[in-house]
Amino acid sequence: MRLRTPPRSQTGARIWRVEGESIEERPDQLATEEPLEIRLLQGERRRTVAVTMRTPGADAELAAGFLFAEGVVDGRERILRVDHLAEGETAAGCSNIVEVELAADGPEPDLASLERHFFSTSACGVCGKAGLEKLHLRIAGPLPPGPEVSPELVRSLPDRLREAQGLFDATGGLHAAGLFDASGALLAVREDVGRHNALDKLLGWALFAGLLPLRGHLVMVSGRSSYEILQKCLVAGVPVVCAVSAPSSLAVELASRFNVTLIGFLRGDRFNVYSGLERLTGAAAQQTFPIL
Amino acid sequence: MRLRTPPRSQTGARIWRVEGESIEERPDQLATEEPLEIRLLQGERRRTVAVTMRTPGADAELAAGFLFAEGVVDGRERILRVDHLAEGETAAGCSNIVEVELAADGPEPDLASLERHFFSTSACGVCGKAGLEKLHLRIAGPLPPGPEVSPELVRSLPDRLREAQGLFDATGGLHAAGLFDASGALLAVREDVGRHNALDKLLGWALFAGLLPLRGHLVMVSGRSSYEILQKCLVAGVPVVCAVSAPSSLAVELASRFNVTLIGFLRGDRFNVYSGLERLTGAAAQQTFPIL
Repeated sequence: MRLRTPPRSQTGARIWRVEGESIEERPDQLATEEPLEIRLLQGERRRTVAVTMRTPGADAELAAGFLFAEGVVDGRERILRVDHLAEGETAAGCSNIVEVELAADGPEPDLASLERHFFSTSACGVCGKAGLEKLHLRIAGPLPPGPEVSPELVRSLPDRLREAQGLFDATGGLHAAGLFDASGALLAVREDVGRHNALDKLLGWALFAGLLPLRGHLVMVSGRSSYEILQKCLVAGVPVVCAVSAPSSLAVELASRFNVTLIGFLRGDRFNVYSGLERLTGAAAQQTFPIL
Repeated sequence: MRLRTPPRSQTGARIWRVEGESIEERPDQLATEEPLEIRLLQGERRRTVAVTMRTPGADAELAAGFLFAEGVVDGRERILRVDHLAEGETAAGCSNIVEVELAADGPEPDLASLERHFFSTSACGVCGKAGLEKLHLRIAGPLPPGPEVSPELVRSLPDRLREAQGLFDATGGLHAAGLFDASGALLAVREDVGRHNALDKLLGWALFAGLLPLRGHLVMVSGRSSYEILQKCLVAGVPVVCAVSAPSSLAVELASRFNVTLIGFLRGDRFNVYSGLERLTGAAAQQTFPIL
């Protein structure tokens, strides 16, 4: 995983701060947002499979995590190499194109799942409940029980994530995703202007570290939890997903169906549990119930 | 614009609220997230052009605003009809497929710009600065000067947006986008689990209302401003874009290049101006300067 040029995750700017009657010019730091093109190379065949607006940094992890979460690759042994391409270099000196080389003798990558997000020229499989059914097939059933986590451990996650978030304090503009083990130790944190990108980077890190599936782990994301967040965590086998803000209905539906403990509004002394209460120590064992 | 079934923008659920040692079961409201498939019909030809996870409601506006912002249609006269399809109906009774019928004798819609977001099988035009150059061509130059807005008017926007946000207080999970005229009057507000969807709905409303381009208007979004937000506002001609949180570097770059007044961290008595200070009354006329 060579990184040809240093990433540039912050961008300096001069801004005007308006407060009451005063207008003061001052320097500021912005979260960098640049497009990243992800290309697949297998044998002689090169294909662009995605373009995402992301914060430069951990691009190899982002590409690998994205491909894993979307079902294009199923393990790190499929990936021979991830490289920035010189042709994608920007004036700022970072490259906006990564090429992921897959084992030439491996199976043809399944690009069909990528179409779920996107422009598609044929009838789409995600509408109604078809997409959920398809995901069900990929995930092969609900997650097994465990691990058990205490409310105190859950409450400690936001502070641990914030302490590790190097960029956020400077720019105020980055989402974070953190991976914790069942004792609450922070294993890795990744940041990005896009919440889904921060999670892809984190899952890519775990893929390269040989930690997948993440059966004994917790993931915490800043902001809200959506279908996309739960889908990625499910593919990676994460049993406990925590978010600072609210989940969507589809996030709760996925979590309930696949036995994920989904926690939201995790702030201060309080949090909400939307599904999978039985992983919380001290909670009477209760059945996860469906959305009304 | 027939709506076959009522939208369901909130979903009831039962959750557990954990606070200190107590675990209390209680009812809650979630922001509904469901996929929406957008199909184009022109003459005899039907095509799926996008699938987006959205909050049901204002689906016709979402489809029209999306198609306008992405350059697929350039005016409301191109759209004959937007309908929910019965085949997309969910158990909850709302349809997750809309069909947009375009005038049969109109030009072939330009679907190329949609590929920017997405899965693409050929080399991608957005990487490096090519995407910005392409957008430049579509927008045909920087926005003209005006309107002038006072700091007091800018500071009043968050409260006006919040007052109009029916759903947010119930679910805590929805982004909002509001359209204001130059006197600060709120013309429309739209909500969605996705910030870009809320803006597409708002632009679709403006398209149907015959208000485009929005040269004398302000848009305010909850959360952050990104490339995508600025790109959509630019296509609609919005000269003043405000956000509750931070902009990304690319949002500031676009705003500077196309003479948009970009405001962020708009909270309480304070806000930051990232470009286009000259639209602020009381500010000495200054040149917009580039990112350092």
